[in-house]
Amino acid sequence: MALVVQKYGGTSVGDIEKIRSVATRVIENHRQGNQMVVVLSAIAGQTDALIKLAGEIGPDPDPRELDVLISTGEQVSVALFAMAVKSMGYDARSLLGFQVAIHTDHLYGKARIHEIETERIRKELDQHRIVAVAGFQGLDDHGNITTLGRGGSDTTAVALAAALKADVCEIYTDVDGIYTTDPSVCPKARKMDTLSYDEMLEMASLGAKVLEIRSVEFAKKFEVPIHVRSTFTNERGTMVIGETKDMEKVLVSGVAYNKNEARVTIRKVPDRPGIASQIFDPIFKSGIVVDMIVQNTSEDGLTDLTFTVLKPDFYKTMRLVGDVAKGIGAERVLGDEDIAKVSIIGVGMRSHAGVAKKMFAALAGENINIMMISTSEIKISCVIEEKYTELAVRVLHKAFGLDHEEKEGQ
Amino acid sequence: MALVVQKYGGTSVGDIEKIRSVATRVIENHRQGNQMVVVLSAIAGQTDALIKLAGEIGPDPDPRELDVLISTGEQVSVALFAMAVKSMGYDARSLLGFQVAIHTDHLYGKARIHEIETERIRKELDQHRIVAVAGFQGLDDHGNITTLGRGGSDTTAVALAAALKADVCEIYTDVDGIYTTDPSVCPKARKMDTLSYDEMLEMASLGAKVLEIRSVEFAKKFEVPIHVRSTFTNERGTMVIGETKDMEKVLVSGVAYNKNEARVTIRKVPDRPGIASQIFDPIFKSGIVVDMIVQNTSEDGLTDLTFTVLKPDFYKTMRLVGDVAKGIGAERVLGDEDIAKVSIIGVGMRSHAGVAKKMFAALAGENINIMMISTSEIKISCVIEEKYTELAVRVLHKAFGLDHEEKEGQ
Repeated sequence: MALVVQKYGGTSVGDIEKIRSVATRVIENHRQGNQMVVVLSAIAGQTDALIKLAGEIGPDPDPRELDVLISTGEQVSVALFAMAVKSMGYDARSLLGFQVAIHTDHLYGKARIHEIETERIRKELDQHRIVAVAGFQGLDDHGNITTLGRGGSDTTAVALAAALKADVCEIYTDVDGIYTTDPSVCPKARKMDTLSYDEMLEMASLGAKVLEIRSVEFAKKFEVPIHVRSTFTNERGTMVIGETKDMEKVLVSGVAYNKNEARVTIRKVPDRPGIASQIFDPIFKSGIVVDMIVQNTSEDGLTDLTFTVLKPDFYKTMRLVGDVAKGIGAERVLGDEDIAKVSIIGVGMRSHAGVAKKMFAALAGENINIMMISTSEIKISCVIEEKYTELAVRVLHKAFGLDHEEKEGQ
Repeated sequence: MALVVQKYGGTSVGDIEKIRSVATRVIENHRQGNQMVVVLSAIAGQTDALIKLAGEIGPDPDPRELDVLISTGEQVSVALFAMAVKSMGYDARSLLGFQVAIHTDHLYGKARIHEIETERIRKELDQHRIVAVAGFQGLDDHGNITTLGRGGSDTTAVALAAALKADVCEIYTDVDGIYTTDPSVCPKARKMDTLSYDEMLEMASLGAKVLEIRSVEFAKKFEVPIHVRSTFTNERGTMVIGETKDMEKVLVSGVAYNKNEARVTIRKVPDRPGIASQIFDPIFKSGIVVDMIVQNTSEDGLTDLTFTVLKPDFYKTMRLVGDVAKGIGAERVLGDEDIAKVSIIGVGMRSHAGVAKKMFAALAGENINIMMISTSEIKISCVIEEKYTELAVRVLHKAFGLDHEEKEGQ
């Protein structure tokens, strides 16, 4: 008998018919002798509809009350799901954040889970009930409702799996697993069987939005195996697990890309101590997230500084940097929105040399110019012209032996 | 400084614009130095929409989960209201049933309030916050969400007012008070200034659906003054309070009617001990509510027994009674759906003679035949042919000096 935590996203519970078929699937698992804890998101579109309603009251709705409002979405889902299970002759109970209880800090809209009580859930499981837990929501120390931010139901599921010491945490979604790259860009993309937490973290932060990044951090910390799979098939999906020896044999596991960044360059910055903090302080203070930062070697006491920010922050950043540049006597500020970042990811890089060389050569072979480079232990990212994104992804996917024909030929 | 509990119904918070104007009104009260606790219903139509959604899962949705589902309606209202208040520069906090906490028994869908904690509300009030409490919902001993049944928000408001020892409980609705009778039937109906709890109870149970009956019972028990008034004007409405000497001076306070009953007569029932329970046992067991029961004096050991039930229960009742009638050897069973009940209500009846005589004479004056009569201390009800309902109401309203012209002439 296994204890299984399953999480179903908004599209998986998109309407009454789908909720019923999720109930059927969960009952099937229950009948096989498993203890089932099911985490549900709001019905697809519900959270956005509620946020829109709040927007009609006025801009910047009170964060505490926004959480009270949007947490109703998951409440509706778990109630309907438990009704569906009961209507099929099995016993089920819905539990909200305060009933579990899921304790969080008090950061409305992006709360972090501190602790999950397991007594109530275990009591329901001991009564042979299927337990449906509302995702995305928790309770702070003063009994206020909090929400965990976008994708928070993934975090709820993984945290519950950790607290309950579940055998596996299955994340059901509308894709059938994690792919070596975006299949809509590269038709030869392949579903991965396994992936390490670290690889998944790099994939997630680079724009492969299947799993919420915090849930993967949680899974890594508590060694919860995650199984990402499709709601609409019975196929095995992708296991996200701790690193194994086998993984290191593969040079590169996946190729990611991100078109949502823009580049800012400050030309001829006087190269003196404290200059970087002078430039970045106003940016950080505005809550703008800076991704890559590259500073060239100084020449005649002047250097070029280049960094990337998210596209929605581009104009604000240009304004802020323009002011600073004048103050510090830099030559000028250049901006470029037409860029993209392509990255190769793989724990195998740690033990293999020449990965970067192979990447640069593959891009050069298609005359794709590299504007910026940034590396980590298990990732290499290059900024290129946006129009080459798809080509670059396909070229890298092939170069590192990820295309599915080659796989089949092995 | 007064502590005021206000309750706004579904039409009062029917859309964002209305929620904003409720916020404006509450802030005005708050600025006048009052401590404000506001109970809100779900946005008009929301509860029905949620019940419909549950119905799509299947008939007879699980009662526990139905309460989890429909309690989201009030949660949405209080969150939006608190946002609206905050957007206008005043401080507000929404509190759900579990946060207050409002403790109930475990009868899902029709729970009764056992106890209301006041600590959290007082703490928020002490911080000069406007407190918005979700109506209709509570929590049982096991931390499960319960709801109080239709009109439950009235009960929440009155119970809160009792627990907080509020100075007044204002029930805001889409009418401007309690009328001497239904204005759509009798254009000369007059808004009452004051009304006793007992009169209101008779009015409510007879079909004047302004206040939920349990909330009036609660108010009577804890002596909470209720002020029923309109959300859309600033006029004084009707005060529902304990009985005063003044009230007894008025013979009849109001005229009520109810077209939702049907009549069942069993002819020539053998008049022997235990016969009534033989007849009514199967009816009560089926959960059918019997209103009036009249048994004529026995003649030759045979009697006629007549009673009324709600129209939706009529056919079921006829079937049940048909079976019993055969068993006990009664002659036959007659049914009549085309009936109505008209009633006059007033605490003044206690100290005045001749009220019944005046009622019967007024009806007779219009050739309206009385089929059944039932009386209580402060009420006389007559069953008549349904087609005469409106005429009867107008005639009684005039006969007892309730028409507004006469009022103005005093």
